[in-house]
Amino acid sequence: MTVSPGATLRELRARKPLVHQITNYVVMNETANATLALGALPVMAHAREEVEEMVRLAGALVLNIGTLSPPWVEAMLLAGKAANVGGVPVVLDPVGAGATSYRTETARRILSEVDVAVLRGNQGEVATLVGIAAEVRGVESIGTGGVPSELARAAAANLGLVASVTGPIDHVSDGSTVLAVANGHPLLASVSGTGCMSSSITGSFLAAKKEAPLEAAAEALAAFGVAGEDAARNSGGPGSFHVQLYDALAALDPGTLDERAKIAET
Amino acid sequence: MTVSPGATLRELRARKPLVHQITNYVVMNETANATLALGALPVMAHAREEVEEMVRLAGALVLNIGTLSPPWVEAMLLAGKAANVGGVPVVLDPVGAGATSYRTETARRILSEVDVAVLRGNQGEVATLVGIAAEVRGVESIGTGGVPSELARAAAANLGLVASVTGPIDHVSDGSTVLAVANGHPLLASVSGTGCMSSSITGSFLAAKKEAPLEAAAEALAAFGVAGEDAARNSGGPGSFHVQLYDALAALDPGTLDERAKIAET
Amino acid sequence: MTVSPGATLRELRARKPLVHQITNYVVMNETANATLALGALPVMAHAREEVEEMVRLAGALVLNIGTLSPPWVEAMLLAGKAANVGGVPVVLDPVGAGATSYRTETARRILSEVDVAVLRGNQGEVATLVGIAAEVRGVESIGTGGVPSELARAAAANLGLVASVTGPIDHVSDGSTVLAVANGHPLLASVSGTGCMSSSITGSFLAAKKEAPLEAAAEALAAFGVAGEDAARNSGGPGSFHVQLYDALAALDPGTLDERAKIAET
Repeated sequence: MTVSPGATLRELRARKPLVHQITNYVVMNETANATLALGALPVMAHAREEVEEMVRLAGALVLNIGTLSPPWVEAMLLAGKAANVGGVPVVLDPVGAGATSYRTETARRILSEVDVAVLRGNQGEVATLVGIAAEVRGVESIGTGGVPSELARAAAANLGLVASVTGPIDHVSDGSTVLAVANGHPLLASVSGTGCMSSSITGSFLAAKKEAPLEAAAEALAAFGVAGEDAARNSGGPGSFHVQLYDALAALDPGTLDERAKIAET
Repeated sequence: MTVSPGATLRELRARKPLVHQITNYVVMNETANATLALGALPVMAHAREEVEEMVRLAGALVLNIGTLSPPWVEAMLLAGKAANVGGVPVVLDPVGAGATSYRTETARRILSEVDVAVLRGNQGEVATLVGIAAEVRGVESIGTGGVPSELARAAAANLGLVASVTGPIDHVSDGSTVLAVANGHPLLASVSGTGCMSSSITGSFLAAKKEAPLEAAAEALAAFGVAGEDAARNSGGPGSFHVQLYDALAALDPGTLDERAKIAET
Repeated sequence: MTVSPGATLRELRARKPLVHQITNYVVMNETANATLALGALPVMAHAREEVEEMVRLAGALVLNIGTLSPPWVEAMLLAGKAANVGGVPVVLDPVGAGATSYRTETARRILSEVDVAVLRGNQGEVATLVGIAAEVRGVESIGTGGVPSELARAAAANLGLVASVTGPIDHVSDGSTVLAVANGHPLLASVSGTGCMSSSITGSFLAAKKEAPLEAAAEALAAFGVAGEDAARNSGGPGSFHVQLYDALAALDPGTLDERAKIAET
């Protein structure tokens, strides 16, 4: 196992993979700009008429259920299945699972019908999907769902994927290994959509390193966390932090990223 | 009657109420971030399948008709009725009422089927809804609809709610009392969605003080106006003002807000 | 032929035309704010129930296929036809044409059923629509589609409209004259939606000068490019550039715009 966010970022910027995102209305612009700032190419397309064709052009597919409705669920399933056929890795962000049964059931349905490579969610969302009681207030995780490293391991083992559970410290597991990622900044929680951005960046890293989803997912969170640390300098609050986050993603230096990344096996 | 935006803001930040918003595509990210910066928790959910369940978790519901279509209207009605059953206060922002008959009729339909606590609109929109001729160009109020304080009082009395009519000076009325709010800055009109943000902030204040919608609505506009005043300092135009507005909302100081708020009975 | 972006901008700010935009979810806020910063009034409305009524109030209609689905296509056709009946000029931005057949066919359908005044796209998109092979990766133009000035001329002649083909140097043609516009900055390519913004600004200029679409389209690109040049000063990356772009659009000086505009007949 080689963990090197710098090497993966360099590869990603060289390849400029297309990252197809079927995501929520709230963050579309934000995840598109985060993807672009990082060095990949975002595309948003959600029509049943085109998602299968679009995903075949992509290096990764990101499904995000933040503002659901039936036609979007249908498109996510079609795109996910086409991604599976074409060998395109799929990231699922189960935004708000646990808040309403529609979200919980939709996330479960995607997990059962699509082969998801990485599930990226907060503790409440992931706990809900493995049947552990958790409190989710809207799209915010309030309850803990237990020890985060164990939650990540259990979710990964249970669901047969890489679980990427974000929080003050992130935990990424393939069911046996658990990687803890200690980068980031509290201001990330003050901006709507930073969780969704981390899923898009996970998709971007996965597009550059699809043979190693555990490492790619942890590297993505470390890179995003380092960008958050950089953005927090001189920021005057959530607005200026948000702006500087894009600058910091674009300025991420592959040459120093490995030493700044705080990724450790737990 | 006690008017204290500082006390309500302190309460809001302690409670962190969920503010369920069924709003337009243009401003979803902006109203989510304004809500979060202020100290409440936004959630956007518009599917018929989940709005009733989501609104039961919320401290307030904000309905905004800025980019309508039939499934969204249906969701607004379902959510509004469920909010009424659960005692969750409802804010309606009738964006563009008066510009097209679809918008005018939808706003009227919501007002007739849902018990709205606060109607927050510009003069043209509110005048349209009480049958006073006004010019609305797209989503901008051009005509005056008469004396704003009288418009607010008439709308409140007529529609049986608190009318919150924004403009260079805002007027909030329950049909008898009229509160004028003189905070704000001309740059607020240079950014798309600041009206929608003021409705989301009204919902947030209402969630913290639902027993006094007149005061909560006026306090919300004063707080937002003060944030606008702060954001305007050192801003170089609409882009930087927009960014600083989130910083200013997050930095709002409950301790000095009451003395900075310019709320007066007219 | 008189080319004067300064004069057209002055006229636009005096008239404040309503620019009706049926556009994609990713950039709605961004194109609304760019339109507003420039000095026109944006309105987004996409419901079949209201687009024909809304477009009759407008000075221009901008159709953008960046996130399509059948109800939106239907609305674009209805609005486009109503615009034609009312003499409202139409801009089409064929985002992603060439990437999927749904996008290519939809763009072709709009071109065949609606009288489009200006087609504003990148080289790959425009080449696709005139049957020249081009590589489009998602919504990015990768291939060249040949010599850009010839592409613009051929598209204009072929499709019977003004073709506005953007790239490092933009080319605008009515089928005989070709105007090259050499303003802009590489950072424009680092922000999602700047192409869409240029289409909205094209609509705004067209609303102020609808009798001369060739000149209006070139002037719009020059004005947007000059704003990009201004925004790039002191920007620290795509995030801060994006913010300063709105400030720069609002600060555009009609008095110096003509001398800063690099528009030349080729």
